[in-house]
Amino acid sequence: MKPEDISCPLPIGEHDTVQLSHGSGGRMTQDLVSRLFLWAFDNHHLNRRDDAALLDVARGKLAFSTDTFVVDPIFFPGGSIGDLAVNGTVNDLCCHGGIPRYLSAGFVLEEGLLLTELKSVVVAMKRAAEAARVSIVCGDTKVVNRGKGDKIFVNTSGLATIEHPYRIGADQLRPGDRILINGTIGDHGVAILSCRQGLSFQTPIESDTAPLCDLVQAVLSQVGEGLHAMRDATRGGVAATLNELAASSDVGIQLQSDALPVAPAVRGACELLGLDPLYVANEGKMLFVVTPEVAAIALNALRAHPQGVNAAIIGEVVAESSGMVSVRMPLGTSRIVDMPVGEQLPRIC
Amino acid sequence: MKPEDISCPLPIGEHDTVQLSHGSGGRMTQDLVSRLFLWAFDNHHLNRRDDAALLDVARGKLAFSTDTFVVDPIFFPGGSIGDLAVNGTVNDLCCHGGIPRYLSAGFVLEEGLLLTELKSVVVAMKRAAEAARVSIVCGDTKVVNRGKGDKIFVNTSGLATIEHPYRIGADQLRPGDRILINGTIGDHGVAILSCRQGLSFQTPIESDTAPLCDLVQAVLSQVGEGLHAMRDATRGGVAATLNELAASSDVGIQLQSDALPVAPAVRGACELLGLDPLYVANEGKMLFVVTPEVAAIALNALRAHPQGVNAAIIGEVVAESSGMVSVRMPLGTSRIVDMPVGEQLPRIC
Repeated sequence: MKPEDISCPLPIGEHDTVQLSHGSGGRMTQDLVSRLFLWAFDNHHLNRRDDAALLDVARGKLAFSTDTFVVDPIFFPGGSIGDLAVNGTVNDLCCHGGIPRYLSAGFVLEEGLLLTELKSVVVAMKRAAEAARVSIVCGDTKVVNRGKGDKIFVNTSGLATIEHPYRIGADQLRPGDRILINGTIGDHGVAILSCRQGLSFQTPIESDTAPLCDLVQAVLSQVGEGLHAMRDATRGGVAATLNELAASSDVGIQLQSDALPVAPAVRGACELLGLDPLYVANEGKMLFVVTPEVAAIALNALRAHPQGVNAAIIGEVVAESSGMVSVRMPLGTSRIVDMPVGEQLPRIC
Repeated sequence: MKPEDISCPLPIGEHDTVQLSHGSGGRMTQDLVSRLFLWAFDNHHLNRRDDAALLDVARGKLAFSTDTFVVDPIFFPGGSIGDLAVNGTVNDLCCHGGIPRYLSAGFVLEEGLLLTELKSVVVAMKRAAEAARVSIVCGDTKVVNRGKGDKIFVNTSGLATIEHPYRIGADQLRPGDRILINGTIGDHGVAILSCRQGLSFQTPIESDTAPLCDLVQAVLSQVGEGLHAMRDATRGGVAATLNELAASSDVGIQLQSDALPVAPAVRGACELLGLDPLYVANEGKMLFVVTPEVAAIALNALRAHPQGVNAAIIGEVVAESSGMVSVRMPLGTSRIVDMPVGEQLPRIC
């Protein structure tokens, strides 16, 4: 099947919306599975239709991760809940330098969801999985009554093989390490919020949802053991993610305000909406923590990759102010970038 | 921590219900994770709080499975959505004869859910995981606005190690094979339905939710390559499950009506409610397909196990009527047990 061929035998049965019966485990569930999911995710594991996929693994380490996606709206500029569901778990699986291999897909559908909308989500998942070179090898579908869900929630869990010998983790930050990011911050959160509030800007703002597995391997192959930690800056943005890293490693992190890449349209929208881009979710941005010796090499590796054209060194790890993140402003002052407490943007992913 | 010690530091912060902020990725999410999930599921993988758990695996085969649970109500006689979420995926992982090792847990919480209810679900998951000897090594929590979910949905995905050399699968049924089940059918579905409709019976009907991994290993160790297939009879009941097996192996299946174990209270409730126990969901029942030579050995192995006291040989695989399941009635007549089409019992798991 060519990736372009997205004509699947919908409508499924005589319905054009999701029925409770699609979640019953009976013939309508089977029809949905075979006519939509097997058609889209086509691989020999899934096609066996067993209760579990049987995977051959080599001795070693596996990364295992899970994420549920409840983004509202389910379609937005730059992507959909389908893209997020694949890319989000792929990116979590990359954080130890692993190569994502297998995903599961668990759907909670609301009775009445248009089957054409479900199909669009599933096709987005199929394409995202192809782009990230992962196979969706097992799945599950449940249907909840109208008004007891919100169109579609998607859980993906996944497995990556770890094929490098290095220790990469949130607890590996050392004073002097440099913090890099592969591009502009805040794009995803602002795209969702603009869409939700019906705002439009001169320059359209799109989600940055993307699988970062190739980018991660590009950096890893260049800097090896010089790579101490990675984490994708999703919910809570760069601020929450760096606070987590600082706490896990008992170090401080100092950012340079003028080094933070922010697209002009996103900066404008954030000012309008009263948001700080540091706290806004990304879905295609990875923070890399590397030794100072390899920082320039890592930056070049990032910039040489299509997903890292706007990469930057945005700060460094310091011994003082353990567990705290701060940002130095252009005039030399400094402010604390605290862990966000409340809810800035609900259902952003 | 002793299993009995279920005093966790709730309420979390000043709230007694789930807030949107608990899903923000900020401090309130962290509090929920550390004070509830890490407290309950305590293990070194989860405690690292990385984006993915790093697992050591031996070379070989892994089973990988996923299931989302949306049962309504979330607490019912015999268990809760927490028990189901662990046992359901554990049982799916057993179907190839694997030993379940690791689970993920993905929560979709509705704003306003009582934290005490969430705690009860999480404690049920903790205890079920202990009973099945699996570790919950990674997780995710999302919160949706009030009225956009229904208290709590739980996805679990899991990994089992396959440590036997046999081919066990839905496509391995051969004419002459015997079909066994480890006990009475329909208990779970009737328990949920009675609870939902406020019915009470002289003999209380409880869900049979249970992890079947030990039972499976007990049979496997006794009959080895004589075990051709296993599948837990959940949504759609024994009828849907056997139809799937018959279709996968291109064989017919003939059941003996008077051999089907049904608890008297469940039989009575089914008559009252107009249900056929063959179509009612189970959450602690496994169908075993074995060669005729080892059927008695398998039956003895089942009956020697606490979860198989009421085990029975309920039918056999036949060459004719490929893909069809039928049941022979006491007077010698026979009826087709078709795949259910519509929805008999929505949100049963």
